[in-house]
Amino acid sequence: MATFQTVRGMRDLMPDEAETLNFVICKAKETAQRYGYKEVITPVVEPYELLSAKSGEEIRQRMFTFKDLGDRTVALRPEFTASIARLATTALKNEPKPLRVFSAGSVYRYDEPQRGRYREFWQSNFELMGANKPEADAEAILLTNSLMKATGLNDYAFKIGHIGVIRGILSQENVDDKVQNAILQLMDKKEYDKAFELVEKEKCRTALRGLLELKGDTPFKTAEKIKKHVTGYDKAEAAADNLLDILQLATESGCPVETVEPAFARGLEYYTGMIFEVTAPKLDVALGGGGRYDRLIEVFGGEPTPAVGVAHGLDRIMLAMQLQKTASCRRREKTVVVIPVKQELNAEALKISQKLREAGISVEFEVMGRKMAKALEDADRRKVDYAVIVGEKELNEGAVVIRDLAMHEQTAVKIDKLVEKIRG
Amino acid sequence: MATFQTVRGMRDLMPDEAETLNFVICKAKETAQRYGYKEVITPVVEPYELLSAKSGEEIRQRMFTFKDLGDRTVALRPEFTASIARLATTALKNEPKPLRVFSAGSVYRYDEPQRGRYREFWQSNFELMGANKPEADAEAILLTNSLMKATGLNDYAFKIGHIGVIRGILSQENVDDKVQNAILQLMDKKEYDKAFELVEKEKCRTALRGLLELKGDTPFKTAEKIKKHVTGYDKAEAAADNLLDILQLATESGCPVETVEPAFARGLEYYTGMIFEVTAPKLDVALGGGGRYDRLIEVFGGEPTPAVGVAHGLDRIMLAMQLQKTASCRRREKTVVVIPVKQELNAEALKISQKLREAGISVEFEVMGRKMAKALEDADRRKVDYAVIVGEKELNEGAVVIRDLAMHEQTAVKIDKLVEKIRG
Repeated sequence: MATFQTVRGMRDLMPDEAETLNFVICKAKETAQRYGYKEVITPVVEPYELLSAKSGEEIRQRMFTFKDLGDRTVALRPEFTASIARLATTALKNEPKPLRVFSAGSVYRYDEPQRGRYREFWQSNFELMGANKPEADAEAILLTNSLMKATGLNDYAFKIGHIGVIRGILSQENVDDKVQNAILQLMDKKEYDKAFELVEKEKCRTALRGLLELKGDTPFKTAEKIKKHVTGYDKAEAAADNLLDILQLATESGCPVETVEPAFARGLEYYTGMIFEVTAPKLDVALGGGGRYDRLIEVFGGEPTPAVGVAHGLDRIMLAMQLQKTASCRRREKTVVVIPVKQELNAEALKISQKLREAGISVEFEVMGRKMAKALEDADRRKVDYAVIVGEKELNEGAVVIRDLAMHEQTAVKIDKLVEKIRG
Repeated sequence: MATFQTVRGMRDLMPDEAETLNFVICKAKETAQRYGYKEVITPVVEPYELLSAKSGEEIRQRMFTFKDLGDRTVALRPEFTASIARLATTALKNEPKPLRVFSAGSVYRYDEPQRGRYREFWQSNFELMGANKPEADAEAILLTNSLMKATGLNDYAFKIGHIGVIRGILSQENVDDKVQNAILQLMDKKEYDKAFELVEKEKCRTALRGLLELKGDTPFKTAEKIKKHVTGYDKAEAAADNLLDILQLATESGCPVETVEPAFARGLEYYTGMIFEVTAPKLDVALGGGGRYDRLIEVFGGEPTPAVGVAHGLDRIMLAMQLQKTASCRRREKTVVVIPVKQELNAEALKISQKLREAGISVEFEVMGRKMAKALEDADRRKVDYAVIVGEKELNEGAVVIRDLAMHEQTAVKIDKLVEKIRG
């Protein structure tokens, strides 16, 4: 029989990779704790209707959608925000605002597999609901900066934009919401000509195209230029002011934003305000991104609730850590093998193993029934620190032999001094 | 618009529950480390062929199976062993034996939802591959015992049986493998009459039915009785000896097994030897279970590899912890809100927040732009420990006001003494 492979686009994380992912998740949880976000765990399988409601055509088409045995149309979550918005309209409905919610787990998109892009990938997700002030937007950026720093990354950059600027122009020109969404999706893919073709009025097209030409200056100057450019479009002007406020708060509290991108759009349909991404050199995909979505909870049947959130691509952060050769996150713990000299001493040797494990020491018990020399050779090859050899003679004196595998030294040690000896 | 609900059988874990699940996962990881198991992370979505190959009809019918956009028949994993066996025949093929592998994550079965049983549930999973000695079987039991203890449970019991006894009888009576599987599935559901109807020979039926009558004695006596009962069935006799060895090793190294169940079977088709479960009072479902599966890796196209494994139902452990009122696993960390006296001081207040967060303190920044009294009232209601109030006067002297919300006391503190003050 041929061996089985993973499904295309899915992958296994082997021990070293799993350890790195766990390290990044741990740092995300630490960040959540420091910013006051409480963790919730939502299902991987959600109603298709929920996940598709405001995610945008692009993501809708790339969802893993199917019918369960009860004939419900369900899908694997492509992101967390829809699930958290669902909670905000149900279980968390009556929680006082602001409400800060954190999640971490796997999400699913049927993308073409490439470096840093899998069909099952990992995200940490932060949502702050109930606040419409720029401090809330700045918090999404600041906590992202904290997470990047905590993982040891030192080469990354923030890019910020404002959907309110673009939607502000389009709304005032009476462009229909659906058309707005289509335009934003195309702008996200940098297909500007196609995007602007959807705009009927020449004046509106000019205003949008003009945004493209404002980029390239320092962040504050670019933001000022945007404000000037949209004079007369009231909502867009207010959005530009909001962008300036957020930019200032983030910068002053220690997170310089490298780029203001006037025509910046993101794939998800639900954004209404500030949007941002954090990127790293040599990676085409963002390490994280998010923004403000003030209408989603209302669309889902809840009270109107302003909200801002960010998701971080944990696999991509792992890749960036590798590229930037961040210091290893590995704790090197002492490891021990326990080997009975003969089979009759197995139970005694197991008892000693249990004692060591209860003291927190990592013990591999000899379960192969191998001869001593063979078992020691194997332990040596796998760079185990100590072999504890359980023999009759020593056992009669309440002792065992401990062998330092690197030093090739061995000595008898009383069993009740064993933990101490191993800990050094 | 009506609000969205979770898909039937799926559920959200709210912050307290998520914290408990994280605690149990943490204990499982600690157990893995202490027993020398390395963690791997495998995909939730696997080829249907892989998951269905040896899982048994019962589970096959309850899998979430669907076609992905590339027309592959895939399913959500109903358990971990198939994925780990896949790894053993591919990425881990050339690793030296014994090979100890740990996983933790969500699995999926279309069961009727009830207390402690969801369609998405959580497991920790340990597999030890390459060893056929009873020490390996005992290890699966011992590490389960360690995990139970680590979660704070004190009322649980082990039940052990041996598929080799039943298969030994059936094989010697030339019962076909497929029929054996059907019999074992029915025995698992305690539908013994139906099961034994599938056996043609009277003698074989009697031998099997006789097993049912052996239960109820002390574990060692029951195991001895099994051995005597199957005299003449060579493989079954060897299996009974193996059961006795495992029982002795587990008991002597500190894990008493409460029950030997002669006619014990489990739903999964791949078991070949010892099987066991750990149960808790007032719960119909086991907290964990596993056993030996010596042929699975071969069936998957690998070298013949003896193996033993165990999975733990983390949701059920959580439920047992609740029923047994184990001491709370919650660390109570100091929490702080930071409130600027006026909007112009937002950036300064954010800067102070970042300082506290970098020191590991949990800070909620005032993002609602509320008046001081309102913000303090909210912090008080949510049982926050301290409010840090950032005002102009104090700031000019490098200080802020810190308010102990429980004591209703406030005092000015220099900013560089703030961490110290909060830590107490």
